[in-house]
Amino acid sequence: MIRNRDIICLDWEVGYFPEGQAGPDRYVHASVPGAAQHDIAIADGYPDFRLDGNYRLFDWMEDVVFLYRTEFDIPGMAGDEELWFVSKGIDYRFGIYVNGVHVLSHEGMFSPVEIRLTPYLQKSNLIEVRVDRVPKRHAFPQDRTQASDVVKPAVGYGWDWHPRLVPSGIWDDTGLQIRKRSFIKDCHVEYKLDDTMSMADIRVKTDVEEASGCKVEWRLFDASGNMVAEVEGPVGEDIAVALPNPKLWWTHDHGTPYLYRAETRLVGRSSEIVDTVESRIGFRRIRLVMNDGAWREPKEFPKSRSAAPAQIELNGRRIFAKGSNWVCPEIFPGELTEERYEELLHLVVAANMNILRCWGGGIVNKDAFFSLCDSLGILVWQEFPLACNCYPDDMKYLRILEQEAVSIIPRLREHPCLGIWCGGNELFNNWSGMTDQSLPLRLLDSLCYRLSPEIPFIFTSPLNGMAHGNYLFRWNGMEVFEWMNKSHCTAYCEFGVPGISPKEVLEKIIPEDCLFPPREGTAWEDHHAFKAWDGNPDTWLAEKTLEFYFRKAETLDELIENSSLMQGEGYKAIFEEARRKKPYCSMALNWCFDEPWPSAANNSVVAYPLIPKRAYYDVAAACRPLCASARFSKFQWAGEEIFSCDLWLLNDSFDSSGRYRISVYVCCGDGDMVHVLSWETPELQPNINIEGPTARISLPDWDTDRFNVIVSVDGHPEMDSTYTLAYRKADKVSLLPYRGMNITE
Amino acid sequence: MIRNRDIICLDWEVGYFPEGQAGPDRYVHASVPGAAQHDIAIADGYPDFRLDGNYRLFDWMEDVVFLYRTEFDIPGMAGDEELWFVSKGIDYRFGIYVNGVHVLSHEGMFSPVEIRLTPYLQKSNLIEVRVDRVPKRHAFPQDRTQASDVVKPAVGYGWDWHPRLVPSGIWDDTGLQIRKRSFIKDCHVEYKLDDTMSMADIRVKTDVEEASGCKVEWRLFDASGNMVAEVEGPVGEDIAVALPNPKLWWTHDHGTPYLYRAETRLVGRSSEIVDTVESRIGFRRIRLVMNDGAWREPKEFPKSRSAAPAQIELNGRRIFAKGSNWVCPEIFPGELTEERYEELLHLVVAANMNILRCWGGGIVNKDAFFSLCDSLGILVWQEFPLACNCYPDDMKYLRILEQEAVSIIPRLREHPCLGIWCGGNELFNNWSGMTDQSLPLRLLDSLCYRLSPEIPFIFTSPLNGMAHGNYLFRWNGMEVFEWMNKSHCTAYCEFGVPGISPKEVLEKIIPEDCLFPPREGTAWEDHHAFKAWDGNPDTWLAEKTLEFYFRKAETLDELIENSSLMQGEGYKAIFEEARRKKPYCSMALNWCFDEPWPSAANNSVVAYPLIPKRAYYDVAAACRPLCASARFSKFQWAGEEIFSCDLWLLNDSFDSSGRYRISVYVCCGDGDMVHVLSWETPELQPNINIEGPTARISLPDWDTDRFNVIVSVDGHPEMDSTYTLAYRKADKVSLLPYRGMNITE
Repeated sequence: MIRNRDIICLDWEVGYFPEGQAGPDRYVHASVPGAAQHDIAIADGYPDFRLDGNYRLFDWMEDVVFLYRTEFDIPGMAGDEELWFVSKGIDYRFGIYVNGVHVLSHEGMFSPVEIRLTPYLQKSNLIEVRVDRVPKRHAFPQDRTQASDVVKPAVGYGWDWHPRLVPSGIWDDTGLQIRKRSFIKDCHVEYKLDDTMSMADIRVKTDVEEASGCKVEWRLFDASGNMVAEVEGPVGEDIAVALPNPKLWWTHDHGTPYLYRAETRLVGRSSEIVDTVESRIGFRRIRLVMNDGAWREPKEFPKSRSAAPAQIELNGRRIFAKGSNWVCPEIFPGELTEERYEELLHLVVAANMNILRCWGGGIVNKDAFFSLCDSLGILVWQEFPLACNCYPDDMKYLRILEQEAVSIIPRLREHPCLGIWCGGNELFNNWSGMTDQSLPLRLLDSLCYRLSPEIPFIFTSPLNGMAHGNYLFRWNGMEVFEWMNKSHCTAYCEFGVPGISPKEVLEKIIPEDCLFPPREGTAWEDHHAFKAWDGNPDTWLAEKTLEFYFRKAETLDELIENSSLMQGEGYKAIFEEARRKKPYCSMALNWCFDEPWPSAANNSVVAYPLIPKRAYYDVAAACRPLCASARFSKFQWAGEEIFSCDLWLLNDSFDSSGRYRISVYVCCGDGDMVHVLSWETPELQPNINIEGPTARISLPDWDTDRFNVIVSVDGHPEMDSTYTLAYRKADKVSLLPYRGMNITE
Repeated sequence: MIRNRDIICLDWEVGYFPEGQAGPDRYVHASVPGAAQHDIAIADGYPDFRLDGNYRLFDWMEDVVFLYRTEFDIPGMAGDEELWFVSKGIDYRFGIYVNGVHVLSHEGMFSPVEIRLTPYLQKSNLIEVRVDRVPKRHAFPQDRTQASDVVKPAVGYGWDWHPRLVPSGIWDDTGLQIRKRSFIKDCHVEYKLDDTMSMADIRVKTDVEEASGCKVEWRLFDASGNMVAEVEGPVGEDIAVALPNPKLWWTHDHGTPYLYRAETRLVGRSSEIVDTVESRIGFRRIRLVMNDGAWREPKEFPKSRSAAPAQIELNGRRIFAKGSNWVCPEIFPGELTEERYEELLHLVVAANMNILRCWGGGIVNKDAFFSLCDSLGILVWQEFPLACNCYPDDMKYLRILEQEAVSIIPRLREHPCLGIWCGGNELFNNWSGMTDQSLPLRLLDSLCYRLSPEIPFIFTSPLNGMAHGNYLFRWNGMEVFEWMNKSHCTAYCEFGVPGISPKEVLEKIIPEDCLFPPREGTAWEDHHAFKAWDGNPDTWLAEKTLEFYFRKAETLDELIENSSLMQGEGYKAIFEEARRKKPYCSMALNWCFDEPWPSAANNSVVAYPLIPKRAYYDVAAACRPLCASARFSKFQWAGEEIFSCDLWLLNDSFDSSGRYRISVYVCCGDGDMVHVLSWETPELQPNINIEGPTARISLPDWDTDRFNVIVSVDGHPEMDSTYTLAYRKADKVSLLPYRGMNITE
C-alpha cells in the first residue's frame, strides 16, 4: 500500500520506438498519471479520438515501446530520511532505470512500485520507465482473447461499447516520496462485530521498517472528532481493542454511511512521533445469504443443489440491491481523477442506487473511487480483471495473478463500501469457457479467503440462480415484458435496454452529413449504433424494433424521442419487475451506468461524460424506495382492446408505514385522464411490497401511437409512476370479444 | 505421514469412568486398533450389537471417558536410534501421558500422533491415552447435528441405514517406532504429464530430520523391477527428473492400473544408507471437464451459468464413471482390516465399476483402502468428513478442520486412484444449509488448491447439473422409469432402490418369531425396514410398492423374491438410462455399495458383511462395458396392451468394433419366447452408444404377475440382457384400441 499524501510529482516526458531500437528519437510532454498514447497524440496534433472514427489513428501505438523519463535534483531531507520512487500503477510490462541502472523488471499494472533510491542517487538524477508493447496472447483474432493470459483489462482490446484502444503507461499516482528510515510500511485494521452488532472487536496489525525501541499507538475518532478508543502496543505485535456500540456504516438509502477516523502512530524512544498513518473505518457486516424461498428449490428428484446465495445482508438487514454495472468512465484510466469519479457517483446516489458492480472487463479503480463510495454509502461489487476469456491454468499466469491479487485485496479490503469479491465476468459461460475447476478462480477464492474472509466471494457472475441479459427491448420476437415477467432468478446482475445518445453527443461525434438518417459504415457504426453485439446489425440503435412499435422516424429528434422512450420504459419494466419478485429476487443491476466515450447508442443511462439520458430518470424513479408500480404483460395495445395492468406498491424501506389510496388513469398525450381503478392499500409493513388488484379497461379509440398510464398516490406525488406504452388503432378483425377473453394471460 | 512397516505393536488395556472421576475402576483387554466400546462390550459379555436391537446397550458409553494404557520395556536400539510413540488415528478428543507426564492434548481423529519418547523414558514405561466423551454440539436433538462442529463422521450419530453407535478410541495403527536421529520425515513425489502424456516431469520433495552431510537418492522401478530413473540431490532441495514415455495408470476397465515403485534413500557421508522410504507411483492425469452439450445450456435469457463440469477425463480420455457410494463397511472403523477392504473391493471390480464415492458422512479410509484401489484400478471420489450438517464459520472449528485436512490431503494425494476431492455431502441443500459462502468449504478449496492442485475439487455433491435421488422405486406416484427417463443431469451421483436382505442375514438379525410377516417395532425396524427415511413408514422395505405390482407375499421367500426383483430392475433401469444419456451424462453412482452392519432392507447391493444381493448382479450386468439394453416407459404392463421398448447397444469401451444382430423376445416364466423384433446394428464406434428401433408387441394373455424381456445378441451371450417386468391380466375396459394410441409415450 502506498500512502497518497506525500507523493512529490515529477515532470515527465515520453517517447516511443520500435522494439529493437535503443530508444526514442524524441520526447514529448507526458501527463503522469495518464497514458503514453494520449501524450503522443496530443503532441502530434491528432484529432480527438472520441470523435468520428479517429480512435483508429492510435492502432500503431500498440506495437511500439514507450520510454518515460524524468530528471530531478535531490530534494532537501533530514538526516534520518531517505528518498523513494513510488508508483501506484504502471501498465503493463515495464522496466525501471535509475541513472542508467536497471533496478526493476515487472509485469502487472495493479501492484505498486516502491524503490529505495538511496543506492542510486547522484546530485542530478534521471529515472526512466520503459513500457513494453501491448501484451497479446496471439496475433489473431484481434480481440479480447489477446488479453486472456494477462492481468490487464480485456475491454481495451475492443468490446461492443468500447473501441479497440489499449492503454499503456503510467496510469496512477507516481513520484518521489521522502520516508524516514523508520516508517509504517503497512497498517491493517480488522474488526469483528458480534451478532447484535453492539461490540466491535478491533485488531490492528502494523508492519514497520527499522523501528527498534518504538511503540505503536492507535487512536479512533468519531465523525465529530471525539476520541472513542486509544490503545498502544509494542512494534510487531497485533493491538486489540473493543469498541462498544459502534455507529454502523449503512448504504445511503438505509441510513448513514458513518465513518470513523483512525490514526496509527509510530512513537520513538523519546515519545517523538516518527510516522503517522490515517485511515477511515466504517463498521458493518456484509454477507451473501440464501434468497427467500431458494432453500425450497429444487423440489423434485433427481435433486440438484439449491441456488447460490445472492441476497445481500447488511448489518443483519436483508436489503434489495438496486444498482448498475460500472464501466471505466474513461478509455484511458490514467486520466481518471477524483473529480471525475465524484460527479458520476453523485448521479448514482441520485438514481436511488445502493450498489455498483465494478465489472471484470475493466480496471480495478483508483483509491478515490472507493473512498467516495465509502462516504456516499454505495456498496461495491468488485471483480478481479478477468472477463469473457478462458484464463489459463498455467503457472506463469497464476504467478502474476497472485501477485496482482495480493496487491488489490489489501488495498481495498478495509473500505466499508466493499461488499462482494468476484472472480470475474461470465466466466462459467461458453463464450469464456472457464469452470469451477479453473485454477485462476480457485487461486482467487483461496487468496480472498486468506486475506479478506469477512467479505463474500463469488467465483463469477452469473452463478446458478443469478442471471445476465437480455440486452435488447425485443429479441427473437420476445419483449422485455415477457421474458422478465416469466423469469425466476435470485439476482439480475446484468440486463440492458439500448437507447440512443442525446443530441448534443451525436452532433459532436458524428459528422453533420452523416447525422440523419443513421447509416452503417459511418461514425454511427464506429460509435456502436450498428453491428455492436451478437452479430445483430440493429444493435445498439434498434431501429427495427422502434419501427415495429412506432412510425418510422422522419427526423433525428423523432428518433431520439422514440429510442429514449423505449429505453426508459424497458428499464422501468425490468427494475420494477425485479422488485416485484422480492423477496426471492434480491438484486437488479442494469448494464450499464456510464460509458468510457461518447457512444451513438448504448445500454448506458449516463452518456459520456456526464449527460443523463431519459432512461437515467426512469431508472431513478423505478428505484425509489417507496413507489407505486404497474405491471404490464406487453408494450403495444390496440384501441378497444381490454388493457390490463397489475397494481403494486413497491417498498424497500424499513421505516415505512401507512395506508395509501392509489388510482390508475390512462390518457393520450395531454388529453383527458380516464380513470380506471382506485385501490386502498392495507397497512404498509417495512420492506414488504404490496400486490394490488388488476386494473382493466377497454381502451378508447385514440389517434396516436403511444399513450400514458398514470399510477397516482393520493397526497404523495413523490410516489406516482407514469408509463408510456405503444398504441395502435383498433384492429377490428383480430379483436376478441370481451366475454371469454383470457385477459389475465 | 507415518510409515507403516516398522510400527511395534503393544498390548493395551482400556477402562472407563465418568467425567470427574480420577480413573477407571478396572481395565479390560483392548484391541488396538479397534474401538473402546467394543472392548468393554466383549469383556462384559454383551450380546452381538449387530443382532436384534442390541446396539442400544452401548448408549451409555457415549458419555464416559475411556483410558487406554500399555506398559513396555525399552526395546534394544542402536546408539543413533530413538524410540517414538506413533498413532495414525485416535478418535476424537484425547490426551496422552507417558509415565504420568502429560505430553499431548489433541482434537481430531485424522491427524497422526508422533511423540519422541526420549525425554520421558524409564526402564519400564507406561503410556496412557485418555479419550474424552463423545463430542456433542448440543444435547438435543440426538442426531447427526450433534456432530456438526467436529471433524468426525456424522454417520455414527444415526442414519437411515446406520444405528446410533458413536465409535471412540484408538482406531488406526498405533505403537512404538524406532527411528534414527537422522530420518526422512516426509517425502512427496509430484509429477506433471505433458499434453501428449509422453513425458512425466517428476519432482521429489523430502523433509529430513537432522541430516547434515547427507544426500537424498531417488530411484524409480517399473513393475518388472527394472530401474527406469535415478537421481540424487542435496538434502533440503527438490530433486527433479524426467521420465519419458511413462506407462500410464488406468482404471481396470480402460487398461492396466500400472504402478511404479519408488525408493527415496537418505545417504550419509560414508555412503551408508541412513533411511529409506518406499512408495508407489501411478502416472495419470485426472480432470473434471464440461459434459458434452453442457456449454450449450442455458439457452434463454435471462441466462445463468452452465452446469458445473462432471465429466471425468482420465489420461485425456472422457470415461463414463460407473460406480457406487462407499460407506464404512464396519460400524467401528477401528476394526477395518486390509482383508476386509480387499474382499469388498474385489466385488467392486467384478461389478464393472470404475469409481467409488467415499461419502462424507463416514471416515476417510485407512491407507490400505487406497493402496488396494491403486492396484485394482478403481478411482476414488474422496469427501472430507462433512455431511448433511451446517458446519459453522467459527474459528475453532476452522482450526481443527484445517489441521485435519492438512493431514488427510498429503496422506492421500499421491495415490493414483484419487480422482476427486469433495468438501462433503449435500451441503448446498436445505437439510444441510451451507452455501458457497461457507468458510469451511472455502478453506477446503483453498487447502486442496495449495496442497493438491492437480486433483479436481468440488465444494459438495450435488453441484448444479449433478443430482442425488430418488431412493425409492416408486415415490409420490412416480416410478423409477418415469423420473429417470425424463431427467436431464450430467451426473447421477446418488440414487437408490431399496431391497430386502438375503434370508441368511434376516434369520441372523431378527428373532425367529418376528421373521414373518415383518412388523414395525421389531428388529425389522431396528434394522431399517420401517420408518428409515423421509418419514415414510414403508422405507426401506417398501411393501406397499411391492403390493402395488404383485400379490401380497405369503411367505418370507416370496417377499424376498419380489423385493429383490424390484431392487434389481430398478437399479438396471437407472444405470442403463444414465448410460443411454451419455455423453451429456457421464456418471452413475448408486447409493450404496456396502453396509456397515446387517440391515433388514437397504439400498445397498452387498449385504453385510459380504453377501451380494440379487441387485448386485443386476448392477454388474448394467455396467458391462458393452451390452444390449432396453428402455421401458413403465414397470407394469397389461395383457393385450401394446408393450414397447427402445433398443440400445450400450458401449463404454474404446476398443470395440463390429456389427451385431440383436433380437427381442418376451416370455412368461419358462414358457415360449415370443419374438418381437430383430435389429442389425451399424458398425460400432469406440465409446459411442447406438440407439436402435422401438420394439412393439401386443402382449399375450398370460396368467402371471411378471414376465421377461430378453434382449439377445447373436453369438454374444455375454452381451445379452434380461428384464423382468410386472404384468396384470388384460383390463378390457381401460384398454385403448390399437389404432390411435400414443404408444411411444
